[in-house]
Amino acid sequence: MTAATPVGVRSRRTADVPALVASASQGDARAVGRLISLVEDASPALREVMALLAPRAGHARVIGLTGSPGVGKSTSTSALVAAYRQRGMRVGVLAVDPSSPFSGGALLGDRVRMQDHATDDGVFIRSMASRGHLGGLSWATPQALRVLSAAGCDVVLVETVGVGQAEVEVASLADTTLVLLAPGMGDGIQAAKAGILEVADVFVVNKADREGADTVVRDLRYMQSLGTQSPSQAKVEGKWVAPILKTVAARGEGIEDVVDAVEQHGDWLARTGELQRRRARRASDEVEAIALTVLRDRMGDLRGGNVLEGLAERVVAGELDPYAAADELVAAVTA
Amino acid sequence: MTAATPVGVRSRRTADVPALVASASQGDARAVGRLISLVEDASPALREVMALLAPRAGHARVIGLTGSPGVGKSTSTSALVAAYRQRGMRVGVLAVDPSSPFSGGALLGDRVRMQDHATDDGVFIRSMASRGHLGGLSWATPQALRVLSAAGCDVVLVETVGVGQAEVEVASLADTTLVLLAPGMGDGIQAAKAGILEVADVFVVNKADREGADTVVRDLRYMQSLGTQSPSQAKVEGKWVAPILKTVAARGEGIEDVVDAVEQHGDWLARTGELQRRRARRASDEVEAIALTVLRDRMGDLRGGNVLEGLAERVVAGELDPYAAADELVAAVTA
Repeated sequence: MTAATPVGVRSRRTADVPALVASASQGDARAVGRLISLVEDASPALREVMALLAPRAGHARVIGLTGSPGVGKSTSTSALVAAYRQRGMRVGVLAVDPSSPFSGGALLGDRVRMQDHATDDGVFIRSMASRGHLGGLSWATPQALRVLSAAGCDVVLVETVGVGQAEVEVASLADTTLVLLAPGMGDGIQAAKAGILEVADVFVVNKADREGADTVVRDLRYMQSLGTQSPSQAKVEGKWVAPILKTVAARGEGIEDVVDAVEQHGDWLARTGELQRRRARRASDEVEAIALTVLRDRMGDLRGGNVLEGLAERVVAGELDPYAAADELVAAVTA
Repeated sequence: MTAATPVGVRSRRTADVPALVASASQGDARAVGRLISLVEDASPALREVMALLAPRAGHARVIGLTGSPGVGKSTSTSALVAAYRQRGMRVGVLAVDPSSPFSGGALLGDRVRMQDHATDDGVFIRSMASRGHLGGLSWATPQALRVLSAAGCDVVLVETVGVGQAEVEVASLADTTLVLLAPGMGDGIQAAKAGILEVADVFVVNKADREGADTVVRDLRYMQSLGTQSPSQAKVEGKWVAPILKTVAARGEGIEDVVDAVEQHGDWLARTGELQRRRARRASDEVEAIALTVLRDRMGDLRGGNVLEGLAERVVAGELDPYAAADELVAAVTA
């Protein structure tokens, strides 16, 4: 079976992983979708998939897009997709946003495409459930990014609602993080609270035709002027000060400026070595998370074998404290 | 130093842990506070603290209290504290609720007491930050529960805002979980979405003097009638059907009914063996979480020693996939 052979993935029970990866690398949307499903289902085939994808997994620029519900994340994502398509780039979208109309499907376990881009084969859109990972991104997000990158996406937009620590997580995954705000949502105060100053590489004040947009811009400038640059930014030469842009995403206004700002940030990342640092940190986090999962699975096996149950019972009975029990568990796992 | 000796905890840099534990066991509020601070700071003394507390750590009934912002969690907590105090019980409160007036202090790293109970030495109140744990409870919550239990609390109320997965988490910690709702908040629909049917042992419709309270009750009854009992409930003999109670917490109305329902649920837990099961599950989760932290720390040490960095760089370069890298990391940790 050659790379060009279309693979009838839906008719197979056991995926032919190398063929699937080959098809996905050719940009076959069904193969890409199937691979992301394997990722989401934590399929045993995942290891083989990731091994095959490794050489192409770092191709895409990853752009995070976060903000409170109602700021227009989905509209902005859609407008950005259109802008990148006009530049001839292949675009992936991962919507990990319980409030997003795109991600409604994920909750039901299926897939929803953005209306405007449904027939464009240069666009891959995937909604992902965030369950299994408290209030944040799906644990499968980094691996879905690898799939989209290997499928030839030049840009992947990761859209997530800025609730809890999700915006911190998306920033840890992304090369460039866009923080969206909108007038009339008390965002100025929210911004200070949630520490979005630390994660934003570009601020986008959407719905800028509404009253109060300038106030949001002013509040952001004021907060920036307080000099609370993020530690990671302070460390590198030539600080990046997040630009504050105004958009009306529903009409496409200001979107080109956002794309330009992302490009400038990309240049800055490359020039300062920060891109390499961010990606290394991301890979460290990913490897560590997988290693912990492996170890947790071993504990689960021990759970089945009553080791953990026995320890837990002694903790409940007050015979053992949880730390001493954990030491015994670690000893069992690493034996 | 005997157990009765008051310990000048604030004046010491290094805590005398056995003395501190002894004072806390006598109900000394400052010692209790100091121990919870050791817990929150993940102090190296934590292991010693937990070892000393183990025999008394399971004394308290743990009552979870969750609901959306605005349903009156803090008012209800305060009313419940008063009701338990009237019954002569010692009460602890852990407020892990970013929206709570009590927990405002936690964000600033200090402590705020409930006005009404500030001078009552039978009440311990502690606010805890939820940071470091995505959108949910602090990782330190189970251990703070142990401290309060060992300090002689008969009941500990854990108040948390029902956002993200927090209500699932609080239910996993609590013997009995109260889910609060209020009229006019679209809670009926919210309830179905968030799966609170699965976590609620008692439903409390607060602000029951407001229009729409009966609609909330009716919606809950309807959802219950759909028969979606939680799997854990279905497993045990004699299903528990969560009662739906109406309160006006601000005036103390209906609070006695809530206390009675909690007691009935406690009887049911004991009779069916579910109490033991819940506590064993809770201890398993706690032990596993600590064990994973221990292993993560070992990885962190390896990080310092460049093992993880080296692996991450090879992942970024596409030479290694993250699973293969994780296997190498696990091998290094368990070597």
